[in-house]
Amino acid sequence: MSEHAPEPAIGIDIGGTKIAAGLIDHDGRIVREVRRETPRHDAVAVEAAVVDVVRELGADAPDAPVGVGAAGWMNLDGSEVLFSPHLAWRNEPLQARLEEALSRPVMLTNDADAAAWAEYRFGAARGESHVVCLTLGTGIGGAIVMGGELRRGRFGVAGEFGHQSIVPGGHRCACGNRGCWEQYASGNALGREGRGLVAAKSPVAHALRAAVDDDPALVTGALVTRLAAEGDPACADLIVEMGEWLGLGLANLAAVLDPGVFVIGGGLGSASPELIETAEASYRKSLSGRGYRPFARVARAQLGAAAGLVGAGDLARTHR
Amino acid sequence: MSEHAPEPAIGIDIGGTKIAAGLIDHDGRIVREVRRETPRHDAVAVEAAVVDVVRELGADAPDAPVGVGAAGWMNLDGSEVLFSPHLAWRNEPLQARLEEALSRPVMLTNDADAAAWAEYRFGAARGESHVVCLTLGTGIGGAIVMGGELRRGRFGVAGEFGHQSIVPGGHRCACGNRGCWEQYASGNALGREGRGLVAAKSPVAHALRAAVDDDPALVTGALVTRLAAEGDPACADLIVEMGEWLGLGLANLAAVLDPGVFVIGGGLGSASPELIETAEASYRKSLSGRGYRPFARVARAQLGAAAGLVGAGDLARTHR
Repeated sequence: MSEHAPEPAIGIDIGGTKIAAGLIDHDGRIVREVRRETPRHDAVAVEAAVVDVVRELGADAPDAPVGVGAAGWMNLDGSEVLFSPHLAWRNEPLQARLEEALSRPVMLTNDADAAAWAEYRFGAARGESHVVCLTLGTGIGGAIVMGGELRRGRFGVAGEFGHQSIVPGGHRCACGNRGCWEQYASGNALGREGRGLVAAKSPVAHALRAAVDDDPALVTGALVTRLAAEGDPACADLIVEMGEWLGLGLANLAAVLDPGVFVIGGGLGSASPELIETAEASYRKSLSGRGYRPFARVARAQLGAAAGLVGAGDLARTHR
Repeated sequence: MSEHAPEPAIGIDIGGTKIAAGLIDHDGRIVREVRRETPRHDAVAVEAAVVDVVRELGADAPDAPVGVGAAGWMNLDGSEVLFSPHLAWRNEPLQARLEEALSRPVMLTNDADAAAWAEYRFGAARGESHVVCLTLGTGIGGAIVMGGELRRGRFGVAGEFGHQSIVPGGHRCACGNRGCWEQYASGNALGREGRGLVAAKSPVAHALRAAVDDDPALVTGALVTRLAAEGDPACADLIVEMGEWLGLGLANLAAVLDPGVFVIGGGLGSASPELIETAEASYRKSLSGRGYRPFARVARAQLGAAAGLVGAGDLARTHR
C-alpha cells in the first residue's frame, strides 16, 4: 500500500499557536524549515499562510507533495477537515482549494496520526508491526499503526484515547462527558491539580505557591513539570499520580489493541522521563492477564516536536 | 490475504461444558453437526474428543481443514494454546498433535475471534470494513475485524474488552484487577446484583426472591434475564442498569477504534433485546465527539451459538 518514494515532500503542522513546516528528504530528515504564527479563528489567513510556506519551501522541489497536519478530524481520504478544535474549520474541502492554489498534491491528516506515522517510519516504533502512539500535551492525542498502515477507523476518527471514560462521574471534560482519561493524565490535568493545591494554600505546595505568588490562575502543567524536575516533592507527587493514571489507561489500551510498543511523545511526554517511568510501572502492574502474555514496550518518542510535520509530509508522499 | 475457497471445512467450538462441532459449506451453513460433553480439566480427553468428532464429521470430506476455537489465548500462527481459562492447557502445541492424529490442516483460534469472523463473513457484519464484536455471556469476549482481517494484536491477545478498567477501585475481577468492564456488564454482573437484592431481602425483588426461595446462591444472570423478560420490574431495572454500563464501554471502544458496527452476541446478548437497546441509547449519549461524527450501528449477532464453530471452520479454510 505504501510506496516509500525517494522524492522530497513538504510537511506542515498547524498548531494552535504556530505553523511549523519543513522540506523533508526520503529518510525523514528536515532539509529546510520555516515557522509562522497561526492566525487563529481566521481560516482564510491559515490557508494563505500554508500556501505561503509551501511556495517558500518548495521553490526547488516543484513536484514535492504536501501533507498538512492539524488537530481535528479529517475525512478518510484526506480531502476535508470535518472539525478542528483550534481552527475555524467545519467540513472544509481544504485539499481541493490548496491543490488548486499550489498545483501540487495535498493530503490532510490529523496531527496525532502524522506524529505516529513519523515515529513508525523514522523514530521509536521503526520495525514494529503494532504501534500505539500517544501525544501527551494539554490533552491526549492518539493514533494506531498496524500492519504497516495507520488505522483510522471507519469514519477516520479512531485513536481518541483521551476520551475513554475511566472514572464514572469524574472530572468534566471539554468533550461534554465526565471522567475522560485526559482529565487525569495530561498537562491540563496537572495544571488543575496544581491550581487546587495553590487555591487551598496547601503548605506542602510552598514551592509552587511561591512560583506563582499564590495566584492559582498562573499554575500550568508545564510549571508543575518543571518544578518536579527541579526536585519539588509536591510537584513530583503530582507527576507520580498522573503517571499512575497514565499507566492504567495504557493497560486498558493493551487489553483492546495488544500493541508491541507504546510510543509516548508530545510536550508533556517529552518533558518528564519520570512520568513515563511511572506510567510504565503502573501499566505493568495493571495489565490484565499479566503473567500469561508479554508486556508491550513503553518508549519515549524520538522525533520531538518535528514528528507532526515529518509524518504529514511522509504520509503525503507514501499515500498518493 | 483470505482465499474464500469453495471446499467444506470442519469447525469445532470447545466450550466450558460442551464441544460443538460442524461440517460447514462455503456459505457458512452447517451441513452436519455433532456435540459432546467437554471433559473438563482433562486435556488428553479433550483432544481425544476433538479427534473423534472430526473423524465422524469428516468421513466424506477427507481434505476439509479443521478450525478449533476455545476460550483462551492462542499464539499468532494458531499452533499453540497459550492459556485457556476452562481447560487444562498451558503452552500446548495442540496444532501439531491434532494434525498428526488427523492428517489434516488444523488451526487454533480464540472463540470470540471465531465468532466475530463468522459474523463478518456470514452474519450481522457482512460487508462492513471496521467491526467490533462482543460475545456477552458470563463475561465479555471481544474481537476486531478491520480491512478484511481479524486484528489479533502483536501477541495474539487483542480484543480483551471486558478487562478495560472503567471503575477505579470497583468490583474485583477474576483477572486480578478491579473495576473491569465485565464486572458491570455481563451475566456474572447481573447474577451478582441479583444475589445482592435477594441477600438483602429487598422487598422490590419479591419475584426474584420467590424464584429462588430466598436463597441468593441460586440467582444467576440467566434467571434475572428471564424474569426481566417476563415483566418483573426489579429484574428489568438490573437489565437497564447493565445496558447503561454496556453503552459506556461501547463509547470507550468507539473512541479508540471507531468501528462502523458493533455486533453483540453471546448467550446474554442474544437473550435480551432490551439490553442491547439500552446499550445503544447509552452509547449514543456517551460517545465523545457526538454531533461531529457518525454513530456506529449496534447490531445483534445473527448466527447465535453456532458462530464459534462456523467461524473456526471458515478461518481454517481461508487462512491456510
